[in-house]
Amino acid sequence: MNYMKEVAVVGVGKTPFGAFAARDLRSLAVEAVQNALSDAGIGPDGVQAFYLGNFAGPSFTGQSHLAPYVAGAAGLTGIPATRYEAACASSGAAFHSAWQAVAHGVYETVVVCGVEKMTCQPTARVAQILAMAGDVAAEGIPGATFPAIFAMIARRHMHQYGTTREHLAHVAVKNHANGATNPYAHLKKIITLEQALAGKPIAEPLTLYDCSLVSDGAAAVVISSRAGAVKVLACAQTSDHVALADKADITHLPSVQSAARQAYAMARLTPKDIDFAEVHDCFTIAEILAVEELGFCKKGEGGPWSQAQPMPINRSGGLKSKGHPVGATGVAQIADVTLQIRGQATGWQLTKADIGLAQNLGGSGATSVVTILGKGN
Amino acid sequence: MNYMKEVAVVGVGKTPFGAFAARDLRSLAVEAVQNALSDAGIGPDGVQAFYLGNFAGPSFTGQSHLAPYVAGAAGLTGIPATRYEAACASSGAAFHSAWQAVAHGVYETVVVCGVEKMTCQPTARVAQILAMAGDVAAEGIPGATFPAIFAMIARRHMHQYGTTREHLAHVAVKNHANGATNPYAHLKKIITLEQALAGKPIAEPLTLYDCSLVSDGAAAVVISSRAGAVKVLACAQTSDHVALADKADITHLPSVQSAARQAYAMARLTPKDIDFAEVHDCFTIAEILAVEELGFCKKGEGGPWSQAQPMPINRSGGLKSKGHPVGATGVAQIADVTLQIRGQATGWQLTKADIGLAQNLGGSGATSVVTILGKGN
Repeated sequence: MNYMKEVAVVGVGKTPFGAFAARDLRSLAVEAVQNALSDAGIGPDGVQAFYLGNFAGPSFTGQSHLAPYVAGAAGLTGIPATRYEAACASSGAAFHSAWQAVAHGVYETVVVCGVEKMTCQPTARVAQILAMAGDVAAEGIPGATFPAIFAMIARRHMHQYGTTREHLAHVAVKNHANGATNPYAHLKKIITLEQALAGKPIAEPLTLYDCSLVSDGAAAVVISSRAGAVKVLACAQTSDHVALADKADITHLPSVQSAARQAYAMARLTPKDIDFAEVHDCFTIAEILAVEELGFCKKGEGGPWSQAQPMPINRSGGLKSKGHPVGATGVAQIADVTLQIRGQATGWQLTKADIGLAQNLGGSGATSVVTILGKGN
Repeated sequence: MNYMKEVAVVGVGKTPFGAFAARDLRSLAVEAVQNALSDAGIGPDGVQAFYLGNFAGPSFTGQSHLAPYVAGAAGLTGIPATRYEAACASSGAAFHSAWQAVAHGVYETVVVCGVEKMTCQPTARVAQILAMAGDVAAEGIPGATFPAIFAMIARRHMHQYGTTREHLAHVAVKNHANGATNPYAHLKKIITLEQALAGKPIAEPLTLYDCSLVSDGAAAVVISSRAGAVKVLACAQTSDHVALADKADITHLPSVQSAARQAYAMARLTPKDIDFAEVHDCFTIAEILAVEELGFCKKGEGGPWSQAQPMPINRSGGLKSKGHPVGATGVAQIADVTLQIRGQATGWQLTKADIGLAQNLGGSGATSVVTILGKGN
């Protein structure tokens, strides 16, 4: 591999996550981009390319060609502007490509934005659109929407490793408590273990409290080969089959394990060096799988490990409580890890936050992106 | 900019373009990818990343997360696999990103595929999906679908530069004649000038013969920093506003001019050095604009220049006759330029084809990609 430049996150911009009837996709994305540029202290002239992560804007809002559509309104016209789609890892994939380009000297400074506007569609249509992240013929049409897919994974994890309903509920309780302190979170509602366990059934064994939120929102980062307070120590993207039926063991996410191993090797770090992580808890069971695949605990021990809380996971509230505007999630995780490392997570700041990890998942694991960030110079 | 490696197109794979009721999106894409790998003489193990250009698979076919969905079926699981969307320039944008990565040493060898499956939807729905490449609120909903948008551009070009209906018709006649010799073309139908002029009106002054086709199809290329018979001499991507109303002069495509200038500078060539070009003739007027912006003739002279045919434009038949499976078009152009340079365009081979140009357009110019290819070693 060529000599690689150090890449810094030099600007962060977010909108709150929530259900915003009066906001459209473009206004959310433009707000995040302008906040990130302002935070970086640069104007549009300082940006050489625009990367947009968006899962299903055409289906949710009826508008495609979204990268120049957003770039034009943000004053970024002229430069390369492309939309990246990799289901729930869309903006993780956009970030990966942007980081590669800056690290290899293609560009000095670029903007990566993730956005999704979801609440404009009724719930049944939202479920149908989200099902397009899985294998529609093999899963969605026969009825295996994502809650059902992750319910099957949870059932199997319980059977194979003794994971319990309580383990899942503890993840929900923690993430709700965390989100309650994050001013940008969609849901600010502390729940008890009893409430989590007694949640409305969605797909056995998952209740309402095991499922992430349907949200509107955007996040953006400016990354650059100029020096910055937060460095990208590593970023890796991998893929796997889309259909659960094509996987050897549904309790295992090999794409996450592989991306994590590549990222640790690139950063010359081990899981023990990570102070905190934002992981892709689209369902509580997904957080349990994530901490296993990221090497924070052994395979099968994610349930008890999560209950014990030996390190901060999803201090932002995670997808569960911060919200999950699908295409925004990957960049939002990176933005939140950056704020922690800078010491700017006001109200939810960790004491030790020198090295953080962000893990973004597409579908039931067909796309994985793992990014490690650390204190820069 | 860093030292850049030479990038070669080492494999080309296509499906025929047409209306294939029995074929789905994935089978088309997999066929193109496998043909390209076979042409390159490498197996899936030799590929480090998968780039998929696709405009509207979720809307046409109901399936999203298409990059790992195709990669998995093509035996490419594990590597980074991302879908690129930039309207009709989706696979041009995917190619641009892939070329950057190989040129800058991120990867040695990658596959870029473009695909679209369109004929599964009724015509009215196809028009609605295509309108998402424009500004839906400002254009599509008020009724300015793409034929109407390019009709306005044509009218203004006629007014400003004296372009005539005959000039447009000559483009159609040439591209139909060209496509009739290309075994992979959707339409193999020679038409006369009189037929073109008497075509069914679509949006004045455009008739049926001024409009490209609604097609299914896929194309793929393998590109590598290893030596190869065809080199990528340059590739540039640019952007512009999505809505026609935001443009200063609707007869001008500044994104194409800018991408062309960047590409010529990178290749150290001028328009006079180009032997032949595949340009984005979504409508006949778009070909006239393209040859002007690419510098083959002066602004406003595209009509008479096209009628005189001083150099081969769209020898493949172009979008007009070869077909326009939207997401496949950018890579198909590059594949066809490669075949010409190799001397493998059996039945439609040009005598002199050492340096060729491919120009891919998104919407009415919000995305542009210009690629120049030449004989390698």
